[in-house]
Amino acid sequence: MVKIGILGVGTVGASVANILETNADILEARAGKKIIAKSGVVKNLSKDRGVSIALSDDPMDVVNDPEIEIVVELMGGVEEPYALVKKALENGKAVVTANKALLAYHRYELQEIAGDIPLMYEASTAGGIPIIGALRNGLTANHIESIQGIMNGTTNYMLTKMINEGALYDDILKESQELGYAEADPTFDVGGFDASHKLLILASIAYGIDAKPEDILIEGIQNITQTDVNFAKEFGYEIKLLGIAKKAENGVELRVHPTMIPASSMIAKVDGVMNAVSVVGDRVGETMYYGAGAGGDATASAVIADIVDIVRGNTGPMLGYKKGLESGLTLLPQEEISTHYYLRMEVDDKSGVLAAITRELEKFDISIESMLQQPHNSDDKVKLLFTTHECQEARIREAIEVLKGLDCIYGEIVMMRIEK
Amino acid sequence: MVKIGILGVGTVGASVANILETNADILEARAGKKIIAKSGVVKNLSKDRGVSIALSDDPMDVVNDPEIEIVVELMGGVEEPYALVKKALENGKAVVTANKALLAYHRYELQEIAGDIPLMYEASTAGGIPIIGALRNGLTANHIESIQGIMNGTTNYMLTKMINEGALYDDILKESQELGYAEADPTFDVGGFDASHKLLILASIAYGIDAKPEDILIEGIQNITQTDVNFAKEFGYEIKLLGIAKKAENGVELRVHPTMIPASSMIAKVDGVMNAVSVVGDRVGETMYYGAGAGGDATASAVIADIVDIVRGNTGPMLGYKKGLESGLTLLPQEEISTHYYLRMEVDDKSGVLAAITRELEKFDISIESMLQQPHNSDDKVKLLFTTHECQEARIREAIEVLKGLDCIYGEIVMMRIEK
Repeated sequence: MVKIGILGVGTVGASVANILETNADILEARAGKKIIAKSGVVKNLSKDRGVSIALSDDPMDVVNDPEIEIVVELMGGVEEPYALVKKALENGKAVVTANKALLAYHRYELQEIAGDIPLMYEASTAGGIPIIGALRNGLTANHIESIQGIMNGTTNYMLTKMINEGALYDDILKESQELGYAEADPTFDVGGFDASHKLLILASIAYGIDAKPEDILIEGIQNITQTDVNFAKEFGYEIKLLGIAKKAENGVELRVHPTMIPASSMIAKVDGVMNAVSVVGDRVGETMYYGAGAGGDATASAVIADIVDIVRGNTGPMLGYKKGLESGLTLLPQEEISTHYYLRMEVDDKSGVLAAITRELEKFDISIESMLQQPHNSDDKVKLLFTTHECQEARIREAIEVLKGLDCIYGEIVMMRIEK
Repeated sequence: MVKIGILGVGTVGASVANILETNADILEARAGKKIIAKSGVVKNLSKDRGVSIALSDDPMDVVNDPEIEIVVELMGGVEEPYALVKKALENGKAVVTANKALLAYHRYELQEIAGDIPLMYEASTAGGIPIIGALRNGLTANHIESIQGIMNGTTNYMLTKMINEGALYDDILKESQELGYAEADPTFDVGGFDASHKLLILASIAYGIDAKPEDILIEGIQNITQTDVNFAKEFGYEIKLLGIAKKAENGVELRVHPTMIPASSMIAKVDGVMNAVSVVGDRVGETMYYGAGAGGDATASAVIADIVDIVRGNTGPMLGYKKGLESGLTLLPQEEISTHYYLRMEVDDKSGVLAAITRELEKFDISIESMLQQPHNSDDKVKLLFTTHECQEARIREAIEVLKGLDCIYGEIVMMRIEK
């Protein structure tokens, strides 16, 4: 019999405790041993958690309990869980965590502390989808060429509504908040930060890259309008907030941003709150993994998969590589990212404007691939939308600065990246 | 260093040997040890295999080689590889096989023989997609409610062409044969037998069901016509050859047949030679796994994932359950399968016919859900197409026999199952 303790008995923690009880039969058959949730830790003992396990408000009651072999960390936050996970590992306990922020910041320190003690984190990325296992164990034969993931259900729900139903950003954000998909302060989701944590975890397994959220390009969906949506539709794209890891010549691109992708690709077909991760390996080609990225039971499903793997003794190297044998790839500076770009700007509705713009772009070696000019407004301005051939991020950024200085261009220039 | 031997150096075997060489850097970093293909066995030594490993035509040179720790079986067939795998296991060697037929017939005997020695088979099902790992390790928290898999690329390619381009069955079969997707005798693919082997493997992991191909319902795509395709389109369905495992009240349904599924479902969007497996767990909901189901490199990717898992010591119980603790679920007899049905028949174009048919169906408690009557032919017959509400397989079969005896119905009645 294996006893576990749960740090943080919220929605996911309660699901873990309940599934261990209701699915005990099949879990014992699969793990080969009974698995029992012994106790949990909460901040507020007076609140009913809907679980039958013993609760305490002192994390040390779990972390120092000699009967507990596996500590499940579901607290959220970074530094407090880091200290507790460290302590649990030092006490020789295996750890399962669903905490993406903890891993985004401390995964390599934790790998060092854990040594041979299992530290598992399937639930940290894309909820119930077993993507960590797929990448860490299922695709080991491959050099990973790229990863593209829809790893935030809130923003995918919002984008789906904007694209399929023509909903406006502000309206759909409000609806998402009412439905409980988005927080009162939605920045963590809509700004791409949540997805960036998950991307960093996948990038470690795929490439052995040690980077933190502040090192990588992160853009949210806040500036997308129906104009962009309509352009995307017309040119055969969907817009998704993607976490992208891509092997380039001199390093690995890591970036989170709204992306135009061909509507015919499998990941473009993933709608609503669902998550999916597409991985291209040099030998297997594209594989894709789809499912629920959030929710108590789905996340608990991944937590318990890790518990069963620990009980079975199937854990492997925490970050996919034997420590010290990482691939040696490094993070490519943001300026060196290379892709296709979409630009939207408001310009004077008169002859010569287009020539002026293309002339400036040419100076940066940027060539236009497709263009759309929208019918002009009452005030003699028109919206100009175009896409570029592949060019470097640094050049497009510089070009935008120069364009913004032109007299014929008004207000902000909105840029979105395109992956083909 | 771990040395492996390969029984059968055809397309997949050569890919395994080559990937072990070209991706040796990353494999060592991930497995923690060097992995070397030492030797291989082929029937015909005079044929160039494009590999640099030593070749022999005597399987015992691999199976009895004390230096070889892992035997990779890629021969095809059933009884010869069974004897060799048995011998390798008895010699204490771990085994990796891509042989679906071997497992469809002998997986429980092999589990018995293997005992604690790893016997892995990720490549046996859906090629490069790590579905065995997902089901065996990633979804252990769940009672599996159902599995629906597109696990044969040939038939999915053919159906995609029939649906998207209006191609006729005979033409597209010929094209598939020319492209090398289909064999000269295509029965194994188009008849659903290939998919049935894979389904049986998944059903063992999900449900612990010990069944053989001849125990389950297997139907192929040979009778599908453009009439059926057009009906499906009109009513919002795609037609896919699915391997289906489904927990019912009194057992588990296992069946392979062309299936009408809602065009909006993710698995309906999987086109061409690609494979995908959708799994519904009681806690995680639906997850889906997509990728290349065949091809030398994709299949070798899965073979090598197993090799790395063995080297890492991550193997778990071969069939997902601790032997003797299987779920206790049993195969539901075919007659007790319950689903929706589509029927196509040719009838007299005169009043009273429809009433006669519905009267007969009522006797079997079968009620019609939707109907389409096609414009009549020159010979005063019309095609009648309809779908039923859920009913039992036994009743629909009996009803079809009775309908065939009616004077107003001509020729065969074609039946297809519908999953919603």
